[in-house]
Amino acid sequence: MGQVYAHVGQKFGPRRYDVVVLGAGRMGALAAHFLMLARPQLNLLLLDRGGLPNEEGATILSPGLWTALDVPPERLEAAEFSRRLIVGDLVTEEGGLGPAGPHEAPTLRRGLIEWGPEEQAGGVPTPEVGEWPPGLLDPAQLFPARFDPQALTYSAAALTTRAAQSAVRAGADLMLNVEAWPTPTGVRLHRLSVTNTHEVVVHETHDVEAGQVVVAAGAEGPGLVEQALGAVTHHARAYRQLPRLNVPTGERTPVVRACGLTLRPQAGGFTVVPGIHHRDPHGYQPTGGRLSGVPVGVRRETLQDLLAAMEAVPALGTAALELGRSVGDVPGAWLALPEGGWPLHQPLTERHWLLLGGERADLVGPAAARALALGLTP
Amino acid sequence: MGQVYAHVGQKFGPRRYDVVVLGAGRMGALAAHFLMLARPQLNLLLLDRGGLPNEEGATILSPGLWTALDVPPERLEAAEFSRRLIVGDLVTEEGGLGPAGPHEAPTLRRGLIEWGPEEQAGGVPTPEVGEWPPGLLDPAQLFPARFDPQALTYSAAALTTRAAQSAVRAGADLMLNVEAWPTPTGVRLHRLSVTNTHEVVVHETHDVEAGQVVVAAGAEGPGLVEQALGAVTHHARAYRQLPRLNVPTGERTPVVRACGLTLRPQAGGFTVVPGIHHRDPHGYQPTGGRLSGVPVGVRRETLQDLLAAMEAVPALGTAALELGRSVGDVPGAWLALPEGGWPLHQPLTERHWLLLGGERADLVGPAAARALALGLTP
Repeated sequence: MGQVYAHVGQKFGPRRYDVVVLGAGRMGALAAHFLMLARPQLNLLLLDRGGLPNEEGATILSPGLWTALDVPPERLEAAEFSRRLIVGDLVTEEGGLGPAGPHEAPTLRRGLIEWGPEEQAGGVPTPEVGEWPPGLLDPAQLFPARFDPQALTYSAAALTTRAAQSAVRAGADLMLNVEAWPTPTGVRLHRLSVTNTHEVVVHETHDVEAGQVVVAAGAEGPGLVEQALGAVTHHARAYRQLPRLNVPTGERTPVVRACGLTLRPQAGGFTVVPGIHHRDPHGYQPTGGRLSGVPVGVRRETLQDLLAAMEAVPALGTAALELGRSVGDVPGAWLALPEGGWPLHQPLTERHWLLLGGERADLVGPAAARALALGLTP
Repeated sequence: MGQVYAHVGQKFGPRRYDVVVLGAGRMGALAAHFLMLARPQLNLLLLDRGGLPNEEGATILSPGLWTALDVPPERLEAAEFSRRLIVGDLVTEEGGLGPAGPHEAPTLRRGLIEWGPEEQAGGVPTPEVGEWPPGLLDPAQLFPARFDPQALTYSAAALTTRAAQSAVRAGADLMLNVEAWPTPTGVRLHRLSVTNTHEVVVHETHDVEAGQVVVAAGAEGPGLVEQALGAVTHHARAYRQLPRLNVPTGERTPVVRACGLTLRPQAGGFTVVPGIHHRDPHGYQPTGGRLSGVPVGVRRETLQDLLAAMEAVPALGTAALELGRSVGDVPGAWLALPEGGWPLHQPLTERHWLLLGGERADLVGPAAARALALGLTP
């Protein structure tokens, strides 16, 4: 059983680790889990700037959607391994984490229906595809298209927590509320604490040697390794907002895709997941748009996507859609856009690795984290 | 002969025009020219926030490059009409503006060579393609690919000035240094003047009625019509920087295209024209990147394109490339990205039109301005 350093009251002594994993979001936590599985004697530190899960990271906002419709043939094996991990079908020796616990958001086989702009061969008639709220969609605007009855929704945050807990059970140390930077010999840590006046301050600094450093800092990873190591990569990032659509949903409501938007049933309503069209430029600060001249919290590019989908999904044109008044009102996070679009790991120096998930971590994140673990294992 | 209102000392009386063209950049000036050609009795006002050309607009930085390689079959007629206007081949009745004057940047048939990642059938051997500076390119990295011996370079700013002058000669009024907004009945004008302390202030305000209003404000057009008229469009914009590459060039140096960059010989060196990959999000402020940790004026996205081209074009890796220290050091402008990528006009209300050029105004801008003029003519 490893040590958990959740706050600065817990004295931190170690000066060397075999591996430090920088970032305990989905990719970092899964990497730590698979590393401990492959090398049980490993001396590993998993750390994160926030808690587990980090409230400001992308993992907690991930749609948690797995559908075979999104998997190209060359990713089938990685996607199938990931699916088995998600539903709890893997045995412990394969890296299984077991099913979601009784207090976690459940993994549900909801099915997903995807409407294209044209009727597709083999399309499924709308009424057969489960239950959804009346008034959500305009059937006249939508043709039955593709249906995946096996599509799953799950909680990426819960999966991440289980992966981190598994790593700790296997002997990894976990440190939370710590800022970290790769250094030529390992990492530098700034343990953070909160003052009486709610200021976050650096409580203490540690230089830790590490045999290997895995940077799994999500959208911040590429910038971090460039700043700290001078390692230039061509990955990018985008700020994705996920507005809430308050139309009643249940456990049998399928995931709906139309006009490039994914509507993910969640907590009795829908989370609207817009597509990622392109990276955001360096230096971009998320900015709310305007609707009929009134400032709202949703960025303009996403507003355009919502407007374009309004005919097919009339509910988007009602007060059920929460647009907020400023950016802070709308759930959103920076998403890594790994070059090529799929989760990946890459060596940066003899000591440092970059691990990136991004939009498709929902599909193949676990397999990508395992691939890194096998790549690092001597 | 129309009246030119260049400064607020010139009293402005009129309260009504048949047509007001808002923006005297390339598209607006050409539209005014073609409108006066089609309807010589027209009572027309052409106006601009700056001078002619506006130092802050996109026209003055336009590469001014016309090559048949960029023209798809369905745009051939528009491109050919535009080419004839550019080289001075059109007669006056067709809208001809004559050739460039003796004091203007000349229109030159330089030719353009474009290297792709692979050797192409019918490729032209490198040595036959004109003169270019030694050391600019690495032939081992480049295969002879496509060559357009007829490719032209010209000054879009000079063409714009000639078009505006032609409109004034035909009777149009021209007002410079004026901010303008479309109103339901015409336009509101703020004539600007400069104080002793170099502050720009509003000197006087006029409401002018107009039968038709053409908004030709470049990248600002869509935002302007949305704010002023509530007309939502799906056009976008991008901030394009054109760094200078100080490698000696002459009148016989061809235009060079490699790795997605266009090197346009200009004023004894090259202007580097990066490709436009995607729109910039609403609210983006251009931001310089960093090279080996040092802040430079070129934005990060363009730096990546330059880095990617450095092997094929080694000159980009030398001090000959001016990267600047901050954004203001590098020539750049907001470029309209009309939906579909080609210059267009569209009706907004019964009175208002939007005219957009963008990246391909170099190829077909004159034909697009003429199409608007014919569309407005009763």
